[in-house]
Amino acid sequence: MKIHKGLDGVIVSETKISAIVENQLLFAGYNIDELIKENVSFEEVIYLLWYLRMPSNEELSCFKKELYAQMPISDTIVTCLKIQTRQNLHPMSVLRSTISLLGVFDPDAEETTNTATYQQSISLQAKIPTIIAAYARLRKGLDPIQPKTDVSMAENFLYMLTGEEPEVIKVDAMNKALVLHADHDLNASTFTARVCASTLSDVYSCITGAIGSLKGPLHGGANERVFEMLREIDSGDLSVEEYLNQKLDRKEKVMGFGHRVYKTEDPRKKHLKKLAKELTTISNKEQWFFLSCEVEQYLKEKKGLIPNVDFYSATVYHCLDIDSDLFTMLFAMSRISGWLGHVYEQKQEDCLIRPRSYYTGPKDLKYKKITNQVSFGGIEA
Amino acid sequence: MKIHKGLDGVIVSETKISAIVENQLLFAGYNIDELIKENVSFEEVIYLLWYLRMPSNEELSCFKKELYAQMPISDTIVTCLKIQTRQNLHPMSVLRSTISLLGVFDPDAEETTNTATYQQSISLQAKIPTIIAAYARLRKGLDPIQPKTDVSMAENFLYMLTGEEPEVIKVDAMNKALVLHADHDLNASTFTARVCASTLSDVYSCITGAIGSLKGPLHGGANERVFEMLREIDSGDLSVEEYLNQKLDRKEKVMGFGHRVYKTEDPRKKHLKKLAKELTTISNKEQWFFLSCEVEQYLKEKKGLIPNVDFYSATVYHCLDIDSDLFTMLFAMSRISGWLGHVYEQKQEDCLIRPRSYYTGPKDLKYKKITNQVSFGGIEA
Repeated sequence: MKIHKGLDGVIVSETKISAIVENQLLFAGYNIDELIKENVSFEEVIYLLWYLRMPSNEELSCFKKELYAQMPISDTIVTCLKIQTRQNLHPMSVLRSTISLLGVFDPDAEETTNTATYQQSISLQAKIPTIIAAYARLRKGLDPIQPKTDVSMAENFLYMLTGEEPEVIKVDAMNKALVLHADHDLNASTFTARVCASTLSDVYSCITGAIGSLKGPLHGGANERVFEMLREIDSGDLSVEEYLNQKLDRKEKVMGFGHRVYKTEDPRKKHLKKLAKELTTISNKEQWFFLSCEVEQYLKEKKGLIPNVDFYSATVYHCLDIDSDLFTMLFAMSRISGWLGHVYEQKQEDCLIRPRSYYTGPKDLKYKKITNQVSFGGIEA
Repeated sequence: MKIHKGLDGVIVSETKISAIVENQLLFAGYNIDELIKENVSFEEVIYLLWYLRMPSNEELSCFKKELYAQMPISDTIVTCLKIQTRQNLHPMSVLRSTISLLGVFDPDAEETTNTATYQQSISLQAKIPTIIAAYARLRKGLDPIQPKTDVSMAENFLYMLTGEEPEVIKVDAMNKALVLHADHDLNASTFTARVCASTLSDVYSCITGAIGSLKGPLHGGANERVFEMLREIDSGDLSVEEYLNQKLDRKEKVMGFGHRVYKTEDPRKKHLKKLAKELTTISNKEQWFFLSCEVEQYLKEKKGLIPNVDFYSATVYHCLDIDSDLFTMLFAMSRISGWLGHVYEQKQEDCLIRPRSYYTGPKDLKYKKITNQVSFGGIEA
């Protein structure tokens, strides 16, 4: 009897969506290095993850039209966002509720045909940038900005945040960040979506569940904590070495470092590091890039730790003028493309994901009205 | 390389909460047969699943006070429920959104200390019956009824549905149904909650995700479909045999039958069957009991299929005057006790659940602007 703690290395299903092969990340057969080199749009990547092939020009143009037409959000959703703007509220909780409410307001939410699933996928993928941008403005007391209908999702998102035309280099960086985060084998949020899909639950339930898992600090929630750390080092009196040594001595996890699967290098890192360098240079924020490099180098030398996707993406998002507590939302905006592909793939598999546990407690206890038993563990409030 | 499809038989973690041992179900060491025989209250079972021991009289009394004090829901939540009452909306979607919104409105939702987790657990467990009863009334245009502060959760729930004192036999049946559904090893919704908890996400995210999975027809969503089937047989022209034969010929799943783990008998069934018999007798609804028995017998003889927890619980809930589309909510009202225990246990384990997939698609594809490729599968809209 073996306990597969954390399911480390356990293969749960076949997939054609993405793969980690020898420290390389493939999306439906394309190495992400190739996709970044060729400046592929996030829209093409969504298509790729769903159809498992690249679109022709005509197909891509139709696909974009479908997506862009679904970007606007209803007044009801804006109202729902407005009631979710209290202080110190985590934005990912808002996203979780709002995506769930999209399902409540979709009269076809219970339809499970492939056509309905496809329409729901288009709608969710299209609306998530609009929801995030609207929320980012509403919590500052600003009105949401309607999406344009003829620009890329990367550009539209940055436009909806500020109402201004974003610089080309920023649009390009946003697009690349979206591409790089789009899918990643059976990470915890994707796996959550697949477990939910395996019960044949609806798409909204799967995505709501995935958002809840992505929120966790051991998953997508790490990127905002990376920037908090950088800011703490920057504003404190300690050197990088002193700060990290104290952190490590306290046995605290350093966010943005280490990965269950990658042991020598995360293939996404080099691209995000390059973007971080370019963006910090044009926006006179080099301090964050140099600081990040120093942290990376010290942790590599001292502990053999390697940065993951979250480490340099934090600086990239900061240079795109995004508040650090919204970083995980940006991760969700991209990863939802993968989640939706996996939900579809899991539904075709038609096999409930239902593991077992190994029971280590007592047996055959007899009930007595008054007990004075020893506790076997359990909650400690 | 082995693919563990559906994680069938794969042990993911140790647990002290519940166990399936030789076709018997134990809650923290107590056989459910013992708990039913001794008429244990649902509140005691919640305590048991969280503390892993039975409470003393005094502890139980304190625990009930804590729970009952948290049962009322805010006006904001009632408002949120009101905007979720459109026609043909699935009640589980409402529950998913509303539990997520409870997190949005809890100023301590991001607190992850054991004390905070405990308070959130009490609040969630206490409010879920109130939310369900309020929703059941609001969608009929009736005002919600405030919970009493001095009666059991089973009684309070039935009271909040109608505003009338429920009969003792119905309270007893409701309590037993809550006890029987409270936990069940790593079923798909509990597993969803644990995957989410393994990222160190918050309790609300874990429970929201679990609700989404429970909603699926291959999981908790089965119970409402059982009663739809019974009604279809009852109102149609076909005999039980003819109806089931046609269903089986169409390769349709018969809801309420079969189980991943139990192959000879589901230990919960006999108790629910007994309750169904008692309740149908006192409420002159014997037709449903006899019909259920006929279905059970035929499927056993013809296909060797055995009823699971959902089969007789459908008739039990029907006799408690609950609309069939609310049945899965009742499952959630009970199972949340197990979910919360598992979330706590998983957090102590501190190990990300992150499996792998086996990639079966192409590799090393080169990007071309215009493609005319063969599809490797993927979405078919």
